[in-house]
Amino acid sequence: MQAPRLEFWYDFASTYSYLSAMRIERIAVSQGVDVDWKPFLLGPIFQSQGWSTSPFNLYPAKGRYMWRDMQRLSEARGLTFRQPELFPQNSLRAARVALVAAEEGWIASFTRAVYRRQFAEGADIGDVATLDAVVESLDPDLGLDSARIAARSVDPAIKMRLKAQSAEADRLGLFGAPTFRTSDGELFWGDDRLDQAVAWAQRLK
Amino acid sequence: MQAPRLEFWYDFASTYSYLSAMRIERIAVSQGVDVDWKPFLLGPIFQSQGWSTSPFNLYPAKGRYMWRDMQRLSEARGLTFRQPELFPQNSLRAARVALVAAEEGWIASFTRAVYRRQFAEGADIGDVATLDAVVESLDPDLGLDSARIAARSVDPAIKMRLKAQSAEADRLGLFGAPTFRTSDGELFWGDDRLDQAVAWAQRLK
Repeated sequence: MQAPRLEFWYDFASTYSYLSAMRIERIAVSQGVDVDWKPFLLGPIFQSQGWSTSPFNLYPAKGRYMWRDMQRLSEARGLTFRQPELFPQNSLRAARVALVAAEEGWIASFTRAVYRRQFAEGADIGDVATLDAVVESLDPDLGLDSARIAARSVDPAIKMRLKAQSAEADRLGLFGAPTFRTSDGELFWGDDRLDQAVAWAQRLK
Repeated sequence: MQAPRLEFWYDFASTYSYLSAMRIERIAVSQGVDVDWKPFLLGPIFQSQGWSTSPFNLYPAKGRYMWRDMQRLSEARGLTFRQPELFPQNSLRAARVALVAAEEGWIASFTRAVYRRQFAEGADIGDVATLDAVVESLDPDLGLDSARIAARSVDPAIKMRLKAQSAEADRLGLFGAPTFRTSDGELFWGDDRLDQAVAWAQRLK
């Protein structure tokens, strides 16, 4: 029998998606649920709402709160967290590499490593060198060559796939990240809904 | 020794504040924490952000999600929930009556009764008759006369107090409701943070 699945929609620039990325596999596996990692670009959705940047920058009180909230939650979970100098970061390149990784079976560890570089170490994930270093840091048994991956990530097919995945996110009614989606179409927005989403998926098997 | 306190900031038009109002006392009491009920008006804060109405109306995908999320959470908690025809409702009158109630010691039960009328029964809480009926429905031992309360609620001192409390909310950096605030100035936004806020308050005693 097939395991129930949970889609995990995330943008690499999203702070709260970092929290989910670091724990979703552990929680899902314990409930017998498989995770579909779905990187997408939130920028175009924000733009269609009239937002030129993250709402955390547009609304300063909300932004100040978010950084403090992330700090408290990270501490409570034993995660390192530091506010990067640049926010939000350009997540386009990371998302393209993630789609290559999805095809090759290493998207989960790549995603966690990108979030860690950004939100635990303060690196700029819009920088090709950062992504190359992330790829090189993954399990050596994967035999990954960062130059090959970087080249594949700008293949027109990969570019198109990211556009299509982001358009699908919009079509499904996503308006923020992380968002979890079960096979019956229920949406659960925010790291705060991760447990509820996994439990919902688990009931559908 | 004085019990630690937790401020509960809410706008009567806020859906997620309904969820918190119905459970905060139970949770706080179990942790030895006293609740300060702080009604305020979120409208002016939204307006200063350039929003003419609730973000759930301004951003339709977010609004659709919120109603579904409220339905799921209410079901899980055994609460009746129904989407009122009018949203957001005018919470000015209810907030003024709540300040009278705060002075007279019945704000907790008044607040819960107003939320129930609005979000379980679909009534319009901007209507004086609805508020009169809520006041009349409270514990008869309180000896409340709805005409007297209605008259007190438009006393200039009460009007001023609500303005001051709403200005204080803005000054404290509140940008949404519910928000919980501990005596060391930490803010916790959203019903999802209620348990964390109570635990934080509890540690400060």
